[in-house]
Amino acid sequence: MSRRVAVVGTGLIGGSAGLALARAGWHVVGHDRDPQRLARAKELGAVSDAFVDLADAVTGADVAIVALPVSQIADAAVAALAAGVPVVTDVGSVKAPVVAAVDVQVPAAAGRFVGGHPMAGSEQDGVDAADPDLFVGATWVLTPTASTDEGALTRVRDLCRTLGAEVVTVTPEHHDVLVALVSHAPQLAASTLMNVANDREAEHRVLLRLAAGGFRDMTRIAAGHTGIWPDILAANREAVVDALDAYLESLAAVRDAVARGDRDFLVALLERARAARRNLPTGAPAPSDLVEVRVPVPDRPGVLAEVTTLAGRLGVNLVDFEVAHSLEGAAGVAVLVVAAADAPAFEAGLHELGYHTSRTAVES
Amino acid sequence: MSRRVAVVGTGLIGGSAGLALARAGWHVVGHDRDPQRLARAKELGAVSDAFVDLADAVTGADVAIVALPVSQIADAAVAALAAGVPVVTDVGSVKAPVVAAVDVQVPAAAGRFVGGHPMAGSEQDGVDAADPDLFVGATWVLTPTASTDEGALTRVRDLCRTLGAEVVTVTPEHHDVLVALVSHAPQLAASTLMNVANDREAEHRVLLRLAAGGFRDMTRIAAGHTGIWPDILAANREAVVDALDAYLESLAAVRDAVARGDRDFLVALLERARAARRNLPTGAPAPSDLVEVRVPVPDRPGVLAEVTTLAGRLGVNLVDFEVAHSLEGAAGVAVLVVAAADAPAFEAGLHELGYHTSRTAVES
Repeated sequence: MSRRVAVVGTGLIGGSAGLALARAGWHVVGHDRDPQRLARAKELGAVSDAFVDLADAVTGADVAIVALPVSQIADAAVAALAAGVPVVTDVGSVKAPVVAAVDVQVPAAAGRFVGGHPMAGSEQDGVDAADPDLFVGATWVLTPTASTDEGALTRVRDLCRTLGAEVVTVTPEHHDVLVALVSHAPQLAASTLMNVANDREAEHRVLLRLAAGGFRDMTRIAAGHTGIWPDILAANREAVVDALDAYLESLAAVRDAVARGDRDFLVALLERARAARRNLPTGAPAPSDLVEVRVPVPDRPGVLAEVTTLAGRLGVNLVDFEVAHSLEGAAGVAVLVVAAADAPAFEAGLHELGYHTSRTAVES
Repeated sequence: MSRRVAVVGTGLIGGSAGLALARAGWHVVGHDRDPQRLARAKELGAVSDAFVDLADAVTGADVAIVALPVSQIADAAVAALAAGVPVVTDVGSVKAPVVAAVDVQVPAAAGRFVGGHPMAGSEQDGVDAADPDLFVGATWVLTPTASTDEGALTRVRDLCRTLGAEVVTVTPEHHDVLVALVSHAPQLAASTLMNVANDREAEHRVLLRLAAGGFRDMTRIAAGHTGIWPDILAANREAVVDALDAYLESLAAVRDAVARGDRDFLVALLERARAARRNLPTGAPAPSDLVEVRVPVPDRPGVLAEVTTLAGRLGVNLVDFEVAHSLEGAAGVAVLVVAAADAPAFEAGLHELGYHTSRTAVES
């Protein structure tokens, strides 16, 4: 008999997990308090059985995955634990308040709850965007505590790996500080930057026509769905405020350096950031010997196709791919991360197509 | 006899202009105070004649393009005007101090100087990265003043159009305020964000592994060359400080809203930014009837090639192309801007390949 997983909340993340686990041979049952969304999840094959009642869904499940908005996770996890599900996990973007709430409400069962957060998503919402490969190569953070059962942690880790993710384990509090820095505060910074520029645009219609690649890159995440953010910001209030304070303090110092014309300060700032950005690890698990092949590309149709088609033709796996625009440029440079062993053939192919390339080692 | 242009400063921008103008039938002469760079420009065909002496280069030229770092522009422009060049322009990232300095130094000749700034560049420096198509589709800002000769302005405008750019005309002061908002302050904001995250990384090696697509987008420009910035920040000090102050003030208000749990404020902020970002005009000149085709794409090799190859096969011109990552996701959505007339065939082709699409009008 196949193992049974209950997916509580059949949106993008729950639906994607359901599709992936069904593919891996699990029996997937689903619950959602929205009957239409639940029916759609079943229609799409994300769940095999659909229950409008949470208790019905979790009864008999070997594991429950709670994929609800942050404010609703603890209650659902507690219900699943109370119903006797041996292992319960969640996928919320904030961990400490969730883990603490479960601990307070069902102290005897809290060891069977393992907080989790896949660093994966989509600009699109909802089960219609669900994808069984959503988590492949993604980092999945698990946040066990001292009271977490080792067996429960192992089973959740195995589940994440079944979904194709790479597991990283940190404490709930640590997780919340980290995502405040690299996700929650940056989202607010991007939206604010977009608004500041847009406020001026009321005076100057021409302004945003001058916004080239760099500005577009910086504000891109401001275009995403906003629905999840109020909950996240409320749940992770303290860490987000701390991260914004650190950013505001640093940026105020930069502003003062500009005001007093402190060239040395500004050069050091920019050089330090440049080195850090170039060493930013890629999300996917990295073989030890990766290199970056950098290819200046004009901004015309067909370039991306040409480069990526070449990679496919040569059997070169693009571990990472991005087009870096200069702040003021339409043209850019394609940064292609490949295994060092693949690089010579790949570069030779690019040269044949008329591209220039340069190669640098990727530091881990 | 072909018209003669003097390119003063044979780096990336000067070299690219030289290549493009040579292709358009101009006789291009060049000057650079670095003899090696000058020789390399000639070797690459960016200039036909190379002069280590500025006066020799500009003598007899119909127009001079000063493509030097901001702090060196005014002196070179004045020298060209004094040598009798009928029309002189530049490509510096800051305009008001340059235009004012020319005005003060040679008031009688200043009408023949037209300040300019192509919103084009490359992550790479130097004449080896020069590209005759660098300016195709780019916005080129010209900053005439009340004393500018109409004939000089017309000739510089025609020159920009020869290079493939779309000309926008604003005052020098206005230009400087605009680029402070969409280029200079954002560069500092990106570098600072990268540094704040990186400073924490000393404590937490895991931090940057959690930095997914959104953070990478936001900090991408921090990876670019830093050399031009100290000059730009010094020359545009006041406008950059004002832009940073506006950003700091707005972000501090956002921080306070998070701290007091002001859900309504945060929702309004995020929704306003989302609408503004979605309406951000593309850099290229837009036909009146463009649409955005949005295609959710998994993060695997070959997707970009598949989509862009299809566009090429169907003869669909991708007016704009970007992959928007969710803040926490490796997967994303390809945003493809095409003419409305091309959209149905393009979407049908995408559906055949198994992609989902959605279409929205691009507001101008």
